[in-house]
Amino acid sequence: MKLLIPTDGSVYSSNAAKVAAEIALNHDYKLVVLHVVPDKGFSRKTWQNKGADSVISIITDILIEAGCDENRIESIIEDGNAPEKIVEIARNESVDRIVIGTQGKSGIKKIVGSVTEKVLQTSDALVLVVPPNYNV
Amino acid sequence: MKLLIPTDGSVYSSNAAKVAAEIALNHDYKLVVLHVVPDKGFSRKTWQNKGADSVISIITDILIEAGCDENRIESIIEDGNAPEKIVEIARNESVDRIVIGTQGKSGIKKIVGSVTEKVLQTSDALVLVVPPNYNV
Repeated sequence: MKLLIPTDGSVYSSNAAKVAAEIALNHDYKLVVLHVVPDKGFSRKTWQNKGADSVISIITDILIEAGCDENRIESIIEDGNAPEKIVEIARNESVDRIVIGTQGKSGIKKIVGSVTEKVLQTSDALVLVVPPNYNV
Repeated sequence: MKLLIPTDGSVYSSNAAKVAAEIALNHDYKLVVLHVVPDKGFSRKTWQNKGADSVISIITDILIEAGCDENRIESIIEDGNAPEKIVEIARNESVDRIVIGTQGKSGIKKIVGSVTEKVLQTSDALVLVVPPNYNV
């Protein structure tokens, strides 16, 4: 079971990582942690690199703490549009699931245009959505 | 693994059923097929009962054809608001996953207010979304 965990550093991503770890540990697994740095048309700045590393570390730490093997965790940092990159990486890496959090019921307006929403519209892969109410 | 498969009779529900069957067969499973008849404030009409039975049958047939045991499939027909009922039944039945299709990239506007969208906002359970591009 190959799982893609897109992360933006939010608590929703952390919850998704906990769920992904639980699923992974019941299978032969490979975990891919992805952070997309918004592409503003300039090359990535030093502070953005630090931020991206830190966002990836948060998730990697959660996975390792849950019992996942560091050698089975790959991390990818990409520049671009988050939903497009998530769908692209899921395809290129032939993942079985995208495991992603959502901010949920803070209002339809807020979720429209959200990353999860756009991923659901264009993904070729199954998407496991971890809602904010889910008790991890 | 207890899976809830909400169905509206669409091809998206059929795809979700195929995915649910595949997951189920790799676990000790129980499948709950749910159809919600929109509640118009009147008691359910004969044609609505027939329609609901038919919608349930489509999914049950897919599950059985995929190798699932009829005795492990429960079906529920409810009146009311679809997303509310789906979330309520998922909670009452303590399901592990809601497996649901989505119509996807026919436009952000179309998906807003859709059943899947509202389920994602309010669910306590994990939601496995089967996108329209998924190759079942």
